[in-house]
Amino acid sequence: MEIKVGIVGATGYAGAELVRLLMNHPYAKLTAISSVSFEGQRLSEIYPSYFGLCDMVCGTQEDVVNKCDVVFAALPHGLSQELAQLCANQMKLFIDLGADFRLEDEAVYKEWYGGNFLDQGLHEQAVYGLPELFRAIIRGKSLIANPGCYATAVPLALAPAIEAGLIETEHIIADCKSGITGAGRQPTQTTHFADCNEGFTAYKVAAHRHMPEIEQTLSRYSQNPVKITFVPHLLPVSRGILATCYATLKEGVTEEQIRHVYGRRYQHEYFVRFLPRGSAANIKSVKYTNFCDVSVHVDEHTETLVAISALDNMVKGAAGQAIQNMNLVLGLEEKTGLVLTPPAF
Amino acid sequence: MEIKVGIVGATGYAGAELVRLLMNHPYAKLTAISSVSFEGQRLSEIYPSYFGLCDMVCGTQEDVVNKCDVVFAALPHGLSQELAQLCANQMKLFIDLGADFRLEDEAVYKEWYGGNFLDQGLHEQAVYGLPELFRAIIRGKSLIANPGCYATAVPLALAPAIEAGLIETEHIIADCKSGITGAGRQPTQTTHFADCNEGFTAYKVAAHRHMPEIEQTLSRYSQNPVKITFVPHLLPVSRGILATCYATLKEGVTEEQIRHVYGRRYQHEYFVRFLPRGSAANIKSVKYTNFCDVSVHVDEHTETLVAISALDNMVKGAAGQAIQNMNLVLGLEEKTGLVLTPPAF
Amino acid sequence: MEIKVGIVGATGYAGAELVRLLMNHPYAKLTAISSVSFEGQRLSEIYPSYFGLCDMVCGTQEDVVNKCDVVFAALPHGLSQELAQLCANQMKLFIDLGADFRLEDEAVYKEWYGGNFLDQGLHEQAVYGLPELFRAIIRGKSLIANPGCYATAVPLALAPAIEAGLIETEHIIADCKSGITGAGRQPTQTTHFADCNEGFTAYKVAAHRHMPEIEQTLSRYSQNPVKITFVPHLLPVSRGILATCYATLKEGVTEEQIRHVYGRRYQHEYFVRFLPRGSAANIKSVKYTNFCDVSVHVDEHTETLVAISALDNMVKGAAGQAIQNMNLVLGLEEKTGLVLTPPAF
Amino acid sequence: MEIKVGIVGATGYAGAELVRLLMNHPYAKLTAISSVSFEGQRLSEIYPSYFGLCDMVCGTQEDVVNKCDVVFAALPHGLSQELAQLCANQMKLFIDLGADFRLEDEAVYKEWYGGNFLDQGLHEQAVYGLPELFRAIIRGKSLIANPGCYATAVPLALAPAIEAGLIETEHIIADCKSGITGAGRQPTQTTHFADCNEGFTAYKVAAHRHMPEIEQTLSRYSQNPVKITFVPHLLPVSRGILATCYATLKEGVTEEQIRHVYGRRYQHEYFVRFLPRGSAANIKSVKYTNFCDVSVHVDEHTETLVAISALDNMVKGAAGQAIQNMNLVLGLEEKTGLVLTPPAF
Repeated sequence: MEIKVGIVGATGYAGAELVRLLMNHPYAKLTAISSVSFEGQRLSEIYPSYFGLCDMVCGTQEDVVNKCDVVFAALPHGLSQELAQLCANQMKLFIDLGADFRLEDEAVYKEWYGGNFLDQGLHEQAVYGLPELFRAIIRGKSLIANPGCYATAVPLALAPAIEAGLIETEHIIADCKSGITGAGRQPTQTTHFADCNEGFTAYKVAAHRHMPEIEQTLSRYSQNPVKITFVPHLLPVSRGILATCYATLKEGVTEEQIRHVYGRRYQHEYFVRFLPRGSAANIKSVKYTNFCDVSVHVDEHTETLVAISALDNMVKGAAGQAIQNMNLVLGLEEKTGLVLTPPAF
Repeated sequence: MEIKVGIVGATGYAGAELVRLLMNHPYAKLTAISSVSFEGQRLSEIYPSYFGLCDMVCGTQEDVVNKCDVVFAALPHGLSQELAQLCANQMKLFIDLGADFRLEDEAVYKEWYGGNFLDQGLHEQAVYGLPELFRAIIRGKSLIANPGCYATAVPLALAPAIEAGLIETEHIIADCKSGITGAGRQPTQTTHFADCNEGFTAYKVAAHRHMPEIEQTLSRYSQNPVKITFVPHLLPVSRGILATCYATLKEGVTEEQIRHVYGRRYQHEYFVRFLPRGSAANIKSVKYTNFCDVSVHVDEHTETLVAISALDNMVKGAAGQAIQNMNLVLGLEEKTGLVLTPPAF
Repeated sequence: MEIKVGIVGATGYAGAELVRLLMNHPYAKLTAISSVSFEGQRLSEIYPSYFGLCDMVCGTQEDVVNKCDVVFAALPHGLSQELAQLCANQMKLFIDLGADFRLEDEAVYKEWYGGNFLDQGLHEQAVYGLPELFRAIIRGKSLIANPGCYATAVPLALAPAIEAGLIETEHIIADCKSGITGAGRQPTQTTHFADCNEGFTAYKVAAHRHMPEIEQTLSRYSQNPVKITFVPHLLPVSRGILATCYATLKEGVTEEQIRHVYGRRYQHEYFVRFLPRGSAANIKSVKYTNFCDVSVHVDEHTETLVAISALDNMVKGAAGQAIQNMNLVLGLEEKTGLVLTPPAF
Repeated sequence: MEIKVGIVGATGYAGAELVRLLMNHPYAKLTAISSVSFEGQRLSEIYPSYFGLCDMVCGTQEDVVNKCDVVFAALPHGLSQELAQLCANQMKLFIDLGADFRLEDEAVYKEWYGGNFLDQGLHEQAVYGLPELFRAIIRGKSLIANPGCYATAVPLALAPAIEAGLIETEHIIADCKSGITGAGRQPTQTTHFADCNEGFTAYKVAAHRHMPEIEQTLSRYSQNPVKITFVPHLLPVSRGILATCYATLKEGVTEEQIRHVYGRRYQHEYFVRFLPRGSAANIKSVKYTNFCDVSVHVDEHTETLVAISALDNMVKGAAGQAIQNMNLVLGLEEKTGLVLTPPAF
């Protein structure tokens, strides 16, 4: 079996990470890549790590669609909708790593991204690709909205407790910290080494676009409106997201109950590692892999659940999850090509 | 005027930082230093930065007490009480950077540190040295308990809102992040470069010793019991603490009110910089100085205050605040020797 | 085919890296591991990254030898000789990542390591396992001395020029920079985060044990005595070695000749990537892989060759090369289990 | 005494560092600053560290010249010559941190910078401001060419040995490593956090503009033509340069002689700290200060001198040395305003 896959926007970080992971996939064959900024250049000129390993030349978007059966898009928001239409017309599986199809409600999309839905019907075909929460409805779809990085981390930390009704769904706090690659490859003052290094700060406090996405996921999953206060911070590391989530326990809920619920919920999820008592999730332990580590802690004196998740923003938070979605849609084992060992150090 | 000052425990990080700052003090004269581990060695052998600048030899604790009028102690907890007694007997000003005199309640001290108060009278003479909150009662004292680093950052972020009654005092969250020097100079697996670098994790979740200290400060300051959920994390930077604090706003409280209250509260505090709207506190902006930057943000959709403080854990969180306390007790301007410009990068 | 492999000293960095790589090997089956310091503990307790992936318990050295056909040893120097004897008696393939069998001359070994050869016969059976230079004599051996990290990087940078007689073999300089993992897992002041971070210094200037090893390799390879000045530095990164090597060009030698010789010499070496003109080797491009990137540059105004190599000190400089040696000895393709893509960022 | 000083190009790194240091100068009063890119903005908007400390607004270049007696310029090369003319006309002391006046020979300037000398007479008035080597001829001048960062580090490492005739002046190697701030504040792919972090590579191998500057300095100082092979590398730290220099010892020269010569040469230089035997210069020990630490090592088996210097590229390599030059020209003690203690960690 050979699946012809292509990447539109291959020279951004998510695109480049897709390349790395797809080289490791037993059935996917990377067939075409495109880039507006680097058309005509070899990928290894942009990323010298790939010298001799992926010297493929960046072509056009049309090229990718024509030559491939699966199209991954890693584009700035607003640019995926026409491409999705094109893929739909040609019956190609389209997996969008951007934000265009993540939000169900056009008004919310407009508020946070400033654009409209070009084709409402297309949006209705799209499915939100967080397999651990929505596996059943992803199968068989051909337009996948791959979740945002924070929007993967926070729901995986909180979903079991919400599902089991163990926490209040008001005043949930998600204090998140992301490595610099989350800000993209484009050089800016924010990503300048001397600005990040030895620095640490919050940004877009309670004003980040992943907030409505997280609320949509948790509300849909629990079938109840969930609100969160979401504050992201910029960590001086290359990769990784740690989400420290706080919620008030319902009266009488014990740490044991919490551990039991999380343990059962995630026991068959290969990519979610529920950590033993005494361990706290660490971004170091998931680097370069599709794992999301989850640890839970209870502050008895304030009756608060602290649920922490760690993932690699470029893998489970982007490219890895996209491949997981592809596997799921195509009926492959979800972990195909994603059995990766995080370095010990 | 010349003040003879000495440092007991000069080779730990807080001790070494005291040396750096005291060299810059116009009246203090560093007269003696001690170290159990490095007795007989020059400080510049332990810290090569100080070569030619402070080649003073580490002597004994007795030496320091005998030769100096002000004794700073930077010792592991449990070791300061006898030294404090000795200083009290000799009428020396004693400023303790350790935890022995921070907690008022012996039962709480015992629960968190496992020891007893050796001399209750001595503890009654001690005063908690957070000048911005307790200035009036620090003046004239001769036994100062210098606050812990987190226990400085969190109260400075929250005190104005609590004092003005703008937030609920239940379900306060303090999500804190500290640089590695917070773990001390002693090499351990936790402080090994390869373990910290590119890693990020929480530790002692809801179980850190600064938690009761923070609660004591906020409760005393507001004259009401305050409880917090406190989760510290280890940041891969050398210095700095960022405290992101969350509290539910009382009904109807606006961002404008919050900004007004903070602005007025801190307008005459040299060391607290209340940042303008749109800025978020960053550890980078306070490095090597005694500043504590505070920014406030309101999440209207959840009616939550996000108050963020940043300080250098070794300066405002330890050595700088200790000198500020010395200045205060001795009737000097508080900023004497502490007018420092943080590097721009 | 299944090869039973084991690791003695599995909890050090080289041992843990062997685990990561062997999990990726199609024929090797990790069967037993040992550790003196952590006997009875699961490897994933020491390295949380491995949770759920390698929860194997550390046993004894004897265990490893008894259960396995291939024994890798990652031990402090001096401890491998008896183990090698044991393996030799039991006809096991023994691959030593330590220094005990690297130096041919007992006097040199004694000078630099302070010990004796326990069994001269055993040392005569040993072969120095740098496949790119000594492939022919490694095949069929059963006692492999895996080279040191610097001692891999420097010869790969210089061998083609020396072999082709293009440079003077006097006054060769090897200015090398290594990530912190080169100093081992044991916490020390040198590896404390706050000491390394934002620091950079040379150490053991012209006095590092890899110097005689490098000289032995280059002298043997060129059949002429080669001397080098070797200065290692400690880089504030976790992994990677960059060796910047300087040699005087023989009269009239051009950059074109140099490029031609290197290109031809390495064209069939999968693990050595000879970079195109205009590129300089970067440790970032080889991370987590067995590649050694080499770039060459000519300073015409001083008639000097600058040859630069970059490798991951834990892979091509330790565990990866050890597996490459195993593959070579066992008649497998050398790159079996070592086809790895370095992350783009 | 009050000296009115101004900075043209205050928002680049060198300009911003001048601000930090000048705030600490007892006689200099920062009176005006300019910036083309940020005219009309407060400096503290560009560098939040300076909030409340330097909220001065960026004006025009003319402003600075008109209001100040001393003008520091930190401009891209090619832009200082007209400004220098203007200052000369108005009898202002002009200290240029750029490259326009560093090279004496117009042909060399043209080769490396691609421009011409606009006014030969002006260039003849300029003096190269490396006080430790050319103090006598700097006094009384009013147009100072402040040396490049590498061009300060390498000569200070080698000058004593060359002056005393202890080394061969052929085949000198300067293997240099610089922190990222050396690449300037402008965001580029090279300075992107994710590109620098955990990376290390050489750049402009034997083709960096500081090479002719270093050769000019050493040749002029020793009155003999000196050639060097100069290879700079980019270190993943914010600040600091380490220069590891290699030269062949003349026959019979011993380490003792070397140490004696260096010790005597630098014994009265406040800013050069000649380190004791057994120490190696470390960028960590000079951070934020005007010190240049120098250590010397002898490799007896190859008869090679290894001389290592460390400095902060933004202080002794730029802004600090500029102030040192100002002090020297104005007849102040050279260390005025520059008595700074490097942090111990």
